[in-house]
Amino acid sequence: MSGSVRILGIDPGSQRTGVGIIDVATDGKLVHVHHAAINLLGAEDFPQRLGELVARLGELLVEWQPDEVAIEQIFLARNAMSALKLGHARGAAIAICAGRGLKVSEYAAKEVKLALVGRGGADKEQVQHMVGAMLNLKGKLQADAADALAVAVTHAHVRASAARLGVGVRQAWSRR
Amino acid sequence: MSGSVRILGIDPGSQRTGVGIIDVATDGKLVHVHHAAINLLGAEDFPQRLGELVARLGELLVEWQPDEVAIEQIFLARNAMSALKLGHARGAAIAICAGRGLKVSEYAAKEVKLALVGRGGADKEQVQHMVGAMLNLKGKLQADAADALAVAVTHAHVRASAARLGVGVRQAWSRR
Repeated sequence: MSGSVRILGIDPGSQRTGVGIIDVATDGKLVHVHHAAINLLGAEDFPQRLGELVARLGELLVEWQPDEVAIEQIFLARNAMSALKLGHARGAAIAICAGRGLKVSEYAAKEVKLALVGRGGADKEQVQHMVGAMLNLKGKLQADAADALAVAVTHAHVRASAARLGVGVRQAWSRR
Repeated sequence: MSGSVRILGIDPGSQRTGVGIIDVATDGKLVHVHHAAINLLGAEDFPQRLGELVARLGELLVEWQPDEVAIEQIFLARNAMSALKLGHARGAAIAICAGRGLKVSEYAAKEVKLALVGRGGADKEQVQHMVGAMLNLKGKLQADAADALAVAVTHAHVRASAARLGVGVRQAWSRR
């Protein structure tokens, strides 16, 4: 690996999608680059929300030129209809990145918690606090942006393990 | 309304997505333009399938320049996980169209059956047979492409009613 690697983390949502970008320096240090929450509630209907999401993500890809993308996996929760809406937003977000040739890695919430706090059962607030601390960010992060940064940091950890072990990103995770 | 209107119908799927394009001539006649099934099974993983889907739909939008888009609604079926995967593909398909400024209309399966066969409880084979007959197509249509043409025809009917009634597309449907 030569030069730093830029990772885009995405926390997809059909009302608001968090994005977080970090650089992994050549010495392995993580550097905060950008984070934001894309608000989709201004769109007229659900299809337009999805259109707005890919338009804004498209601009972000052009502006920040990430090398790799990480996104949280979802599972069907109590409310299956909101999971389905989330699936639409997540599918749109993955598609726009993969459609531009970017490799997209998926992580379960438990994997993110384990990578950030060291315990798969850590709560969301602990994860968000730890993201701020690891990236030297002052003040309280917006929750969706913090989750997006967290999945980007998770991917940075996993790919560092993969490089050390000389294996792929998925294998590195399963050997933890 | 001056000139003909071109409608793209989409039957989304995470393994195969059907597309069907029809023109509504100024006299209201429906003319078959194109249909195909986009096979996504060659992609390496699920994110790449979605990337392939938007890349192929993007090419289709450029080549055929539809004016409006119609897509079937989905509901959570017995297998919630396949519904979620379908949601990802559907979200990606809607997003690429809406992101290019196209209006996307959604129709329930019952609405499609009612428009094509005249009965909300018609079976899938009747709908596919009727699509072929209405568009003067010889031979058996591939099922996903037929479903895509069916939702395009549904939209053509609904927008014709809307024009007659002088109301929006959604209102026209609810007055049927």
